[in-house]
Amino acid sequence: MKRNLADRLLGAIDEKKNPSVVGLDPRIGMIPEHIKEDAVERAEDPFEAVRYSFVDFNKALIDSIEDIVPAVKPQMAFYEQYGHHGVRAYHEIVDHAKKRGLIVIGDVKRNDIGSTAEAYAAGHLGKVELADGHHEPAFDTDMITVNAYLGTDGIEPFLKTCKDHGKGIFILDKTSNPSSGELQDRTIEGDGRVYELMAELIDGWGRELTGERGYSSVGAVVGATYPEEARKLRNMMKKAVFLTPGYGAQGGTADDIIPCFNRDGYGGIVNSSRGINFAYMREPYSEDYGPEEFAEASRRAAKDMKDDILSSLEKGGKIPEGW
Amino acid sequence: MKRNLADRLLGAIDEKKNPSVVGLDPRIGMIPEHIKEDAVERAEDPFEAVRYSFVDFNKALIDSIEDIVPAVKPQMAFYEQYGHHGVRAYHEIVDHAKKRGLIVIGDVKRNDIGSTAEAYAAGHLGKVELADGHHEPAFDTDMITVNAYLGTDGIEPFLKTCKDHGKGIFILDKTSNPSSGELQDRTIEGDGRVYELMAELIDGWGRELTGERGYSSVGAVVGATYPEEARKLRNMMKKAVFLTPGYGAQGGTADDIIPCFNRDGYGGIVNSSRGINFAYMREPYSEDYGPEEFAEASRRAAKDMKDDILSSLEKGGKIPEGW
Repeated sequence: MKRNLADRLLGAIDEKKNPSVVGLDPRIGMIPEHIKEDAVERAEDPFEAVRYSFVDFNKALIDSIEDIVPAVKPQMAFYEQYGHHGVRAYHEIVDHAKKRGLIVIGDVKRNDIGSTAEAYAAGHLGKVELADGHHEPAFDTDMITVNAYLGTDGIEPFLKTCKDHGKGIFILDKTSNPSSGELQDRTIEGDGRVYELMAELIDGWGRELTGERGYSSVGAVVGATYPEEARKLRNMMKKAVFLTPGYGAQGGTADDIIPCFNRDGYGGIVNSSRGINFAYMREPYSEDYGPEEFAEASRRAAKDMKDDILSSLEKGGKIPEGW
Repeated sequence: MKRNLADRLLGAIDEKKNPSVVGLDPRIGMIPEHIKEDAVERAEDPFEAVRYSFVDFNKALIDSIEDIVPAVKPQMAFYEQYGHHGVRAYHEIVDHAKKRGLIVIGDVKRNDIGSTAEAYAAGHLGKVELADGHHEPAFDTDMITVNAYLGTDGIEPFLKTCKDHGKGIFILDKTSNPSSGELQDRTIEGDGRVYELMAELIDGWGRELTGERGYSSVGAVVGATYPEEARKLRNMMKKAVFLTPGYGAQGGTADDIIPCFNRDGYGGIVNSSRGINFAYMREPYSEDYGPEEFAEASRRAAKDMKDDILSSLEKGGKIPEGW
């Protein structure tokens, strides 16, 4: 029996006294020239040069924040768009972050019918069958994000894999983007909003995966950009950890994320990607750091984010006991 | 200006007189031993052996059906679960199928907020930026499947890429799996079922991508397992091509798929995966074909599927003019 992921996640949050996660969203146009030049020199083809650029950039970023944050969240889209070279970079970055003791949340938003969802679950969270019949892990991330438009039978393979391998998922509920309401805010006859129906489903799916600390390995994605909805959802899914994107670049503030936390000070983990990854290009960090010091700029931005969140949690009366 | 994808797809369907697509869903445990043994011998590690097995199996399968079907649909989950080795197999199979003149539908069900959806769109349908600033295609599939739980701003990057590069998407509407109704069948106040709201959105998104033959490059996924819902949806999305999974292994019959077609005989493309891929293991084909003749068994199964669909279309008065 593997240790419950929610227990591990809360433990990591306690250790760093920081309920935040840094998204790893590399964009080739924003990676410092000296990294790209070095990568191009070593690479045998232009896609391999992107792989080297992404790996070098992200390893330095991870090493600069590993003592500050409990988790990182590589966004698969930015890697996958470069085909197998990009996916190899994703895998190498996942491995590196795990070696640094970080919890790795693969932001993949996978979804499919049951027999196919099994393959996604095996590859990202479990073990896959090889040609000689034995099983090995592939990506082996700790958690992934999942889209539940297909309902229970597309989610069950992920739940089973989470149980067997001590892993977790975050299911999309109320997403941070401007048009999330087109479907998610609609009212269902006799059952509240679509995001409330989804909350009921998530709460049910997560019940069997509740850990010793009262939280489940089945969490929910709830955007920082919708604090009112977050407040309602917090009451409906008491055991779920909310992965909260939208802080920073998307306009959510630290005060906006307070409703995502329970009174005990847990239940939220706030993501920032662009604001940390490319801090060296942004005010105020760009005043003090050049492209050569991009990792130091990211470190300072990650610390500032932590301070920002903690001061809002304090203001909201939601600092965990003993921090 | 690239040729409209829906026009290309209907042209390919006319050429083969066959509105069906073969899913490419490799499962290592079902691939004939002689292929795996050969792959293991050549490979340097067990994940590479899976890659070689998948590529060899699928190339033979594609070559055996290329003159029968207009399109193939590799299911990314089965490849991606093996990490970058699996994704490389996916890419090699996409390339091979395109060389054989087939339209390739990547079944990836991707979805994310706008800025991230751009990366998925670029990688699967468009071109990606490289380290030196120039742009090249990565996977370069003709179409992909997409999940619209996040609403318009998660879909727009795909629409733009489809316009720029003559590509297409199928958006999940009423999926074929047993629990699809948990969300998709719920009634929205003043607006019908969730799948009907989705149909309105899909119809709107597809308008600007309508080709000369009156169909749009924005299609919908509508399961063969729900013919009543398909009938309603057919009336709501007249310009959309329906990608219809669920025929065969999931229980949908050729008669069930008739509502997916318009009166002109177009508007549907029916998928079968397991029933064709591993026909050599199934009745009645297993009587005539052993593992060494798996491709011949698949060829016969693909022909039988075509005949089955055409006879149902004929019965339903929906055979295209001139076939």
